[in-house]
Amino acid sequence: MTGIIIDRESDVPLYLQISAQIRAAILQGEIENGGRLTPERRLATLLNVNRTTVVNAYRELASEGFVTGHVGRGTVVTYQRPDSSAAVEDGSAGQANSVAEAGPRSGRTALPWQQLLAPLAGAGYDSMMLDASTVAARRDVIQFTSATPSPELYPVEQVDAILSEALETAGQELLQHTPSEGFEPLRAALAAWMGAQAATADLAVDFNPGRILIASGSQQALYLTARALIEPGDLVAIESPTYLGAAQVFRACGARLLSIPVDRDGMNVELLSELITRRRPKLIYTLPTFQNPTGSVMALDRRKRLLDLASRYQVPIVEDDPYSALRYRGRPLPSLLALDRARGGDRVIYLSTMSKMLFPGFRIGWVSGPRPVLERLAQIKQIVDLDTNALVQWAVWAFLSRGLLTDHLETLREAYPLRLERMVRGLAAHGNGLIECDQPDGGLYLWCRVNDRLRVRDLLAESAREGVAFAPGEPFFLDTPSEAGRNTLRLNFTLPSLAEVDEGTRRLGIALVRLYEQARGETGGAGRRRAVTPIV
Amino acid sequence: MTGIIIDRESDVPLYLQISAQIRAAILQGEIENGGRLTPERRLATLLNVNRTTVVNAYRELASEGFVTGHVGRGTVVTYQRPDSSAAVEDGSAGQANSVAEAGPRSGRTALPWQQLLAPLAGAGYDSMMLDASTVAARRDVIQFTSATPSPELYPVEQVDAILSEALETAGQELLQHTPSEGFEPLRAALAAWMGAQAATADLAVDFNPGRILIASGSQQALYLTARALIEPGDLVAIESPTYLGAAQVFRACGARLLSIPVDRDGMNVELLSELITRRRPKLIYTLPTFQNPTGSVMALDRRKRLLDLASRYQVPIVEDDPYSALRYRGRPLPSLLALDRARGGDRVIYLSTMSKMLFPGFRIGWVSGPRPVLERLAQIKQIVDLDTNALVQWAVWAFLSRGLLTDHLETLREAYPLRLERMVRGLAAHGNGLIECDQPDGGLYLWCRVNDRLRVRDLLAESAREGVAFAPGEPFFLDTPSEAGRNTLRLNFTLPSLAEVDEGTRRLGIALVRLYEQARGETGGAGRRRAVTPIV
Repeated sequence: MTGIIIDRESDVPLYLQISAQIRAAILQGEIENGGRLTPERRLATLLNVNRTTVVNAYRELASEGFVTGHVGRGTVVTYQRPDSSAAVEDGSAGQANSVAEAGPRSGRTALPWQQLLAPLAGAGYDSMMLDASTVAARRDVIQFTSATPSPELYPVEQVDAILSEALETAGQELLQHTPSEGFEPLRAALAAWMGAQAATADLAVDFNPGRILIASGSQQALYLTARALIEPGDLVAIESPTYLGAAQVFRACGARLLSIPVDRDGMNVELLSELITRRRPKLIYTLPTFQNPTGSVMALDRRKRLLDLASRYQVPIVEDDPYSALRYRGRPLPSLLALDRARGGDRVIYLSTMSKMLFPGFRIGWVSGPRPVLERLAQIKQIVDLDTNALVQWAVWAFLSRGLLTDHLETLREAYPLRLERMVRGLAAHGNGLIECDQPDGGLYLWCRVNDRLRVRDLLAESAREGVAFAPGEPFFLDTPSEAGRNTLRLNFTLPSLAEVDEGTRRLGIALVRLYEQARGETGGAGRRRAVTPIV
Repeated sequence: MTGIIIDRESDVPLYLQISAQIRAAILQGEIENGGRLTPERRLATLLNVNRTTVVNAYRELASEGFVTGHVGRGTVVTYQRPDSSAAVEDGSAGQANSVAEAGPRSGRTALPWQQLLAPLAGAGYDSMMLDASTVAARRDVIQFTSATPSPELYPVEQVDAILSEALETAGQELLQHTPSEGFEPLRAALAAWMGAQAATADLAVDFNPGRILIASGSQQALYLTARALIEPGDLVAIESPTYLGAAQVFRACGARLLSIPVDRDGMNVELLSELITRRRPKLIYTLPTFQNPTGSVMALDRRKRLLDLASRYQVPIVEDDPYSALRYRGRPLPSLLALDRARGGDRVIYLSTMSKMLFPGFRIGWVSGPRPVLERLAQIKQIVDLDTNALVQWAVWAFLSRGLLTDHLETLREAYPLRLERMVRGLAAHGNGLIECDQPDGGLYLWCRVNDRLRVRDLLAESAREGVAFAPGEPFFLDTPSEAGRNTLRLNFTLPSLAEVDEGTRRLGIALVRLYEQARGETGGAGRRRAVTPIV
């Protein structure tokens, strides 16, 4: 369950759409017995439906025995997951009907699937993120939640021409399997690309294509890397707040997380250096450039210090770098990888992707790392999905080797800063001093803090009422509830148009002001304790 | 290392190409200290090079201290992997040179990567498979090793037209992320497709698109499934011989394997029923239709029996079904999934792929399973690579929904049986009674046995001399060395042209006859003990 999604065009009544999704979440164990549903009024606001609709959805679930309403406690899940095979049917078996092979229907022909599943760490969702997803899934809101570049700038026609050329040139070969390490010319082009990036930071590094592996997006690059290095129980030093998908990967591989705070100069390397001897992490994961969600850039002295720590304590660095080419101002800093290689080191596994520079749909990411790691990644890749789509690798090779990616990045570096400026200006104009932000030098995100008296959890509902969606900051923190995160939020400025930026910041301003007035009106409102998080 | 690959066009001398690949395998730990290299003469034959070339390669390795030649024992690895950080550099760090950031070079800036890697079960290669890969990688041999359909029949022009249409129709959307479960219309089209397949076996089953997940190939479908169900130490009942990639996946997830023999009627379900109470496997993996490598089809009574076992002992069945649409004669049998659903059951997780019906390059496979499993697969997919290329999903949807896949399968079902017949005839004509085969009703493979006095290991070298490559059967068996497997081989008939089938079977015949004459000439040749397997 990634938030409740309703379809107003559907013939299925809204309350049944809602109850069906909550029922599925309960059956999946995503909401435990005893857990509380989102209060009716709040869910109605998030979804922009009448409160009656939610009331009816919860009544439906109550009549089925899944939940019980309690005065003062809200709606509580009262469903014990079965330990027999009885209750895991989902109705579709009932649709099956046999012509030739009819046999007696028996309860035994369904297995207790829920109990047969192996545990999966790290797959849970934070309730606030679910609320945010519920709002973001609405078609009638302005989206500041995205983590992707702007679709109207996608080079669709170039993609079309390049794919046609690829198929005409080498169709049979490109529809075949390719080596697990990736398509050779693309690996060479990426090595050249990384060299050119290092040169913009005045480093001359000659990257070796043999140390590059192509993955199905940088998510896979990260998964392969974690799978190669992590054994259950290992500790991973990781920034907080950080990219949630990374935390999920490490947890799914059985790692525990050692969270290191991030400030405007990136990871607090000083603190890491104090902890590293005592805690002995297996690896250090960092997003040093235009970090997600904070947009911060790790300072050069911290980069050097981090490399020193890696060699002193023999702890590998995993550098996740999807955003560095999206710099809008200031001088480029070298990646940790480039800095390391320029000094003759070999301490960094570097991950990047085409998803933020071009678009995410091609699913092309890559890893550059030491050869023993690369060979192991190829073995794991062979096991998890054999190889990466060769046709698409050819297309990305064409974008790189013909300078089309460079041209496209020029376009983005013109368009995005305008939206960013406009967003910053909009927040200043409409925010009434209730919101402040760290204007980044690049990337996709504007990291903001609201007035101390406000809670972003409440802003989410007020904004949903106004029709604007954003990502609350707290779920990006690893240790929740997080005092540091509770009044933070992440705004994306690459997806919305300029007009949407204007209107969205105006709506956010209205929500902020209303919330502030409520907070002032409430007795002790600003200081009241956070309630236990209800889950939907 | 997946076999030694030499490039005769390269400026690098052949002996250095060979020594570099063996050195890498030693550094990777793929050949352990004390392990033996393939004898010089044999490797020279497999690679079709002068023996001197291999002698020089081994001398090079000896001079570097990686191996030592022993009279009577051959060439033995004498390299201890370091427990310090010293020996893991691969030279590329030496290429790096610093302009602005030069610091003192220190041995400490390279980490002991080999020791930092987590153990990976199941990634090892069988030495005979490596030998076969070494032969198959040569450009001057006829290929009977393939596991893919015929590239000259790929519908390249249709792909081109469909991708253009997709980009013109919905380019921005298709270059974006899609849900982890897959592109809705493709899921619906696959449900309809499975229903149509069931109908050919006289079963009316209404498959639910909500229970289908799109994966990056059926290899990923299998990995996700194993990851969802297997905990380290679990036992998996699996056919022997079987698809090696499946065994690798289960082992990588920490499973132990319970091998169940296969005969012409598929898995020996009777034996499984005897073992299941004592051994309690966590799941049963089967490839019931045109099995890889044997081409066998599980009989209907065994299919029913297997479903009964699954419900009686509450053991899920994972049905891997890449080949069933490639039937050339005889009546279709229902899949285990269709049989199960038609009886109102829910005991089967079904995997299939477009790789054998269309081509492997799109990396599109799918899973149909119980909803709790599907939801878990989507969670894992989210962690391992987020989602599958939407553009390509649209293209496969077009192939399915417009009947193009059906048309394409008609073409294949005309072309492939001709090649199969020709191969069977060629073996009969040239094999001198030294080879017999189980002619399959469909699929890609012809499973053969050579005369008892011959070893397929030796045939591999003789065939390499003649310029024909095949897959030895023994590595497909789970318990090697396998007495049952030692005189088996798998021939692919879909990749080679008719002319190549003729010439390849002729060459195989020459190799067989020469080998047989050698065996007769040797004192006690047929009965001699198998030597310990040398590893390269």
